[in-house]
Amino acid sequence: MADENSEMLASVALNHEENENKEDFVDPWNVQSASATGVDYAKLIDRFGSSAIDSELIDRIEKVTGKQAHHFLKRGIFFSHREMHKILDLYEQKKPFYLYTGRGPSSESMHMGHLIPFIFTKWLQETFDVPLVIQMTDDEKYLWKDISIDEVQRVALENVKDIISLGFDIDKTFIFCDFNYIGQCPDFYKLIVQIQKHVTFNQVKGIFGFGESDCIGKISFPAIQAAPSFSTAFPHIFKGRRNIPCLIPCAIDQDPYFRMTRDVAPRINLPKPALLHSVFFPALQGATSKMSASDPNSCILLTDTPNQIKNKVNKYAFSGGQATVEEHREKGGNCDVDVSYQYLKFFLEDGEKLEKIRQDYTSGELLTGHLKKELITVLQQIVAGIQDKRKTITDELAREFMTPRKLKFDY
Amino acid sequence: MADENSEMLASVALNHEENENKEDFVDPWNVQSASATGVDYAKLIDRFGSSAIDSELIDRIEKVTGKQAHHFLKRGIFFSHREMHKILDLYEQKKPFYLYTGRGPSSESMHMGHLIPFIFTKWLQETFDVPLVIQMTDDEKYLWKDISIDEVQRVALENVKDIISLGFDIDKTFIFCDFNYIGQCPDFYKLIVQIQKHVTFNQVKGIFGFGESDCIGKISFPAIQAAPSFSTAFPHIFKGRRNIPCLIPCAIDQDPYFRMTRDVAPRINLPKPALLHSVFFPALQGATSKMSASDPNSCILLTDTPNQIKNKVNKYAFSGGQATVEEHREKGGNCDVDVSYQYLKFFLEDGEKLEKIRQDYTSGELLTGHLKKELITVLQQIVAGIQDKRKTITDELAREFMTPRKLKFDY
Repeated sequence: MADENSEMLASVALNHEENENKEDFVDPWNVQSASATGVDYAKLIDRFGSSAIDSELIDRIEKVTGKQAHHFLKRGIFFSHREMHKILDLYEQKKPFYLYTGRGPSSESMHMGHLIPFIFTKWLQETFDVPLVIQMTDDEKYLWKDISIDEVQRVALENVKDIISLGFDIDKTFIFCDFNYIGQCPDFYKLIVQIQKHVTFNQVKGIFGFGESDCIGKISFPAIQAAPSFSTAFPHIFKGRRNIPCLIPCAIDQDPYFRMTRDVAPRINLPKPALLHSVFFPALQGATSKMSASDPNSCILLTDTPNQIKNKVNKYAFSGGQATVEEHREKGGNCDVDVSYQYLKFFLEDGEKLEKIRQDYTSGELLTGHLKKELITVLQQIVAGIQDKRKTITDELAREFMTPRKLKFDY
Repeated sequence: MADENSEMLASVALNHEENENKEDFVDPWNVQSASATGVDYAKLIDRFGSSAIDSELIDRIEKVTGKQAHHFLKRGIFFSHREMHKILDLYEQKKPFYLYTGRGPSSESMHMGHLIPFIFTKWLQETFDVPLVIQMTDDEKYLWKDISIDEVQRVALENVKDIISLGFDIDKTFIFCDFNYIGQCPDFYKLIVQIQKHVTFNQVKGIFGFGESDCIGKISFPAIQAAPSFSTAFPHIFKGRRNIPCLIPCAIDQDPYFRMTRDVAPRINLPKPALLHSVFFPALQGATSKMSASDPNSCILLTDTPNQIKNKVNKYAFSGGQATVEEHREKGGNCDVDVSYQYLKFFLEDGEKLEKIRQDYTSGELLTGHLKKELITVLQQIVAGIQDKRKTITDELAREFMTPRKLKFDY
């Protein structure tokens, strides 16, 4: 076990023992940044033992797919990976793999930050044309929050509709909520128990910081987020094939689950999942502040009206500009801490326009008000598009996405 | 939580902290008796905080049912209970309750000791005419043993057929294996997670002795054995009714699971299960020796031939008789340690005959050889009866018993 545990041990040291000095803190429930520019991602790569997404990898993605890389890749929003080259090897060899991402349905209204993994996953699916599974961890939210099972299931369904609104292809996408899917698929539960047999309390204590007063539901939950990394979790899609590898696009704070998963994989004779990690999406108030859907002023919600978007950005978006117009013209703005600019990096697809904005803002030519105006327009367009699509998503369609079934792929 | 935890705290002290002096040790995986006469059950009642099954309770059972009490009750084989009077109150008021028992399917061939809870449960079901659920914890055996999921599922099916051979009524009995049923019934999984939210690692550490190097599957398993104690686990039988109490006949070593369950019940707003506890069934070699189906010479298997039964009893059954016939005639035999007599207490229904045997053996009139001959006849009859019935049990019939369905009761 010693060798196989190297990744897991790295994470032990990382999250819950070495955190005495003022380093960034990142686990699935807490992200604390020590600096206004946010988490130091280069350091995180070092400490997590993952690999940077460098220009060589991006070039290779463009080469093998014959397609421009997504701007999330080119702008360092997805910045870290594990074994993405292996996935590209498979793609070149026309061998199968699949995509897995997910969401903990804690709030009825998703915010723009929640969209990042889904926007990117959709691009990956369209680019590679592979099956996608999306896990809604309603059981996790019930265990961690003061919420009833009925309520968390209701919220999960609303979130599923939001996700579908991004335009996922029903013939290639299976969305599932744990509470229901575990009760629908004996093979999924078997896989969960297999994983639970191969992870000790000591290990989850090290990786996730669980203590003796934590409930046994939390302690065993990591196996449930790990399980969809293996194709045996979806017999209706993969017909029992054990060897179809998985690629997981997710925010870097979810990596502890998949470090654990990668350690368990060889011990249960299944392939390790590959990963693509994104940076965190900042709160309107800036990178050191916590974004939360329960504080509607910290984020742009998918339910916000054009006017709400305008007011929130104007009122709350942390500015990297100077105190007065004169000073701004003279010294220029700081894009590294300016939230409006950061948001544009995520959502303004036109790279040339973004670069011009960056130059003009940095030089002082562009004022904060103009920068915010650009952002407001972009956000209003995206949110309106999703809201239009969202109106067409019926409960029935959501249920179809969530029905265990064969997808448009043969195995 | 303090008050509700009283039973749980009693068990903490009992199993894993106060066991330094030479007391009997009892938990679901280990039973160590300090004496040749076996575990001191009166002490166990004290330490577990349960109640003795006294003549008052037995009289009341006979009165409310209008039926002779089962010899397991009259002979102290079921010796301890929790809240059996409440169950009798319900019966008198014609209010519903149900029975729950189970088995960990670790060996293909069940032995006579495994039958005790099932024989008694069958009598309870016939006497009270209530639904019965039987849990096969195949997931537990996979977690605790070096066995594959396929193999443990195969063994479980064989065990189910053995259990059905005792004559359970298919219209009133639902048998389920965890690996399948959890994957068939979302409500069951929801209940498990509810329980897991209300039990901490500290609690299962105290009750079951789990340590930090135990796998997270073991740590969370107690919730899975607890869940069938609540009627919400079986929506197809109880139509979602939450308030139908449960009576659990089981060997006393399973009590830790249900102490935990009774502590959790009020916190998730469900009724505490009542219990009836049996003594342990001794190995052929005597009460201080461990009986195991994997050592065929330690027990009578349901697959034994008449000749094997005869040879095993003659060769291995620990005798309470004296070294020579002369000495035996003079001093008499000791029924308290004589395994053949103990087995007759379990299986010879004729109470007068048993009492005569006890007197004659104690006085020295009856020799060990004769006592063994009586036992051999009784065992051969019972085992042959089960074997005859077993031949008629098809895979299909077993699957019918295991199909989630409405039983012959309306709610």
